[in-house]
Parts: sequence; C-alpha cells; structure tokens
Amino acid sequence: MTDPSEQALQALQSKLLAMPPARALQPQVQGYAQGRLSLHAPLAPNVNDKGSAFGGSLASIMTLAGWGLTVLQVEAGGFDADVYVADSQFRYLAPLRDALHAEAWLDAEGDGWAVFLATLRSRGRARATLAARVLSPSGEAVAQASARYVAILRRD
Amino acid sequence: MTDPSEQALQALQSKLLAMPPARALQPQVQGYAQGRLSLHAPLAPNVNDKGSAFGGSLASIMTLAGWGLTVLQVEAGGFDADVYVADSQFRYLAPLRDALHAEAWLDAEGDGWAVFLATLRSRGRARATLAARVLSPSGEAVAQASARYVAILRRD
Repeated sequence: MTDPSEQALQALQSKLLAMPPARALQPQVQGYAQGRLSLHAPLAPNVNDKGSAFGGSLASIMTLAGWGLTVLQVEAGGFDADVYVADSQFRYLAPLRDALHAEAWLDAEGDGWAVFLATLRSRGRARATLAARVLSPSGEAVAQASARYVAILRRD
Repeated sequence: MTDPSEQALQALQSKLLAMPPARALQPQVQGYAQGRLSLHAPLAPNVNDKGSAFGGSLASIMTLAGWGLTVLQVEAGGFDADVYVADSQFRYLAPLRDALHAEAWLDAEGDGWAVFLATLRSRGRARATLAARVLSPSGEAVAQASARYVAILRRD
C-alpha cells in the first residue's frame, strides 16, 4: 500500500481514544514505516503489581497495533468495514520496566494486503494474519504476538 | 485445595485494583466454586468502537482470572511468590454486548495444584496451564483462553 497520510494516522489516534479500554492504556500512534505501524504507551497506566508492564496491556497494545494497521489498509482501499480480532497468541519474553513500544506488520506467511482487499471487495469479508511485538529500550523483543483479524463490509 | 476464604478473595480484589490497567477494567472478584474463580466487569469501561466488548478487555479479564486463581493457590499453599503470565492464546467467538463474566480453572491436561505447589516448594518456581472463558448472559462462551503462568518464590 501507499503510506497512510498524516490525516489517516490522526484519525486512527482518535479512534483509539474513543474506546474507553484503549484510552486507558494512553496509546500514541507513533508512525508508519515500511509496512509497520508503531504504537507507544507510557508505563505508568500499564504497570502491574511487580513494577513491570501488565501482561494484559502488552496484549492490548499489540492487538491494537494490528487492528490499527488493518483499519488503515481497509480505509486506504476505500472500504467502509468493521475490523474484529478473531484469535490471538502471545508470548511474554522478559519483564519491561519502561514505556511500551509496539509494532505490527502483515505476517509474511500471509497473502499480502492486495489479496486481502480484493477478497474484501468480492466476498464482503476478508482475514489477515498480523505479527506484533513490544520492544525494550535496547530494541529487544519483550513480548510477541500473532493475531488474525476479520474485516466485514458495513451494509448500512 | 480448600476453598479460598472470603478474606483471600478480598485481598485478591485489592491486588487487582492496585494495578492501574486492571483497575481500568473495573473487575470484581465474584467468587470461587468447584475450582473456578469468577471475575466480572461492566461493559461501559470495556466497550470498543462497535459497541461490544473490546478484545483487549476480554483477553485481560481472562488473563486476570487465571492469574488470580494461581495467586490464590500460591497463597493457600503458604508461599510468597510472584506470578507471571508466560504465554496465552485467545479465541473470540461472538460479540458480547453485556457485562463481562469470566471464569478460569486449572486445565485438566495439567498436573493439578498439588504437583504445582510441590514443584514450587522444591524448585523455587512452577508452571501451571489454565483455561478461561467469558460467558454471555445466556451462558454461551463468547471468548476462550489458554494461558501458562509461572510462579517464582520471592527471595527477599
């Protein structure tokens, strides 16, 4: 796809803040580059009883990064569709005692965004598998995810 | 295990509310019966852009239910240990437009809590695999999870 516009990224930021449980994470759309969407969140609203990032917050920020990237693709394709997460898997690799820096991208095993959008056009729904991770300040993955998203055209 | 006391359930409620991202879900420890811990949360703080329960909240409430049950077991065994989620898998089966009713239990494939506690005592750490689900008002599973938790004895 062509890179999403600054306007599209700002619209995504507004969508995130409009959902109370997403807003609670205090996510910031950081940018899009080379097929990857980056979301950041501060540690303070996402800290657990051990002073590190809460597993649920790590899962949520990665889920939102994949959801956001899928939403950007759907909109860039000119579609009006709802995007749902269908299933997801997470591995928590190391405690994170810093801000949450997440990124998501289309899984290389998948068919590519062009096929996803062609399927959405022809069938009214399409699935995409996205990978995501959260990085430590030194660039090490502290959590990783794989999740499938479904887009369904709005009929109304 | 013997059923956790009302005091243990109240202490768990306090632990949940002490974590900002967990508190944001507004979870309520509902009770423990027949090996299952139940947590509830209202829809309003957990709603997504489609008026249904946010995937991240469903994942978090199930993760917390499993974490809470493991914490109760560790404490009932007389141990002082940190409990972490190591990995988790989620399936989202149907939209939920109602309060989140989650329950977690020890996966039948596992070795049982007695073995878990014996391992924690002898090795200083132990793993348990828990299942969880979120139920609709009619008792149908709208989301399900499997997650592994690690307990590590505190040395200080």
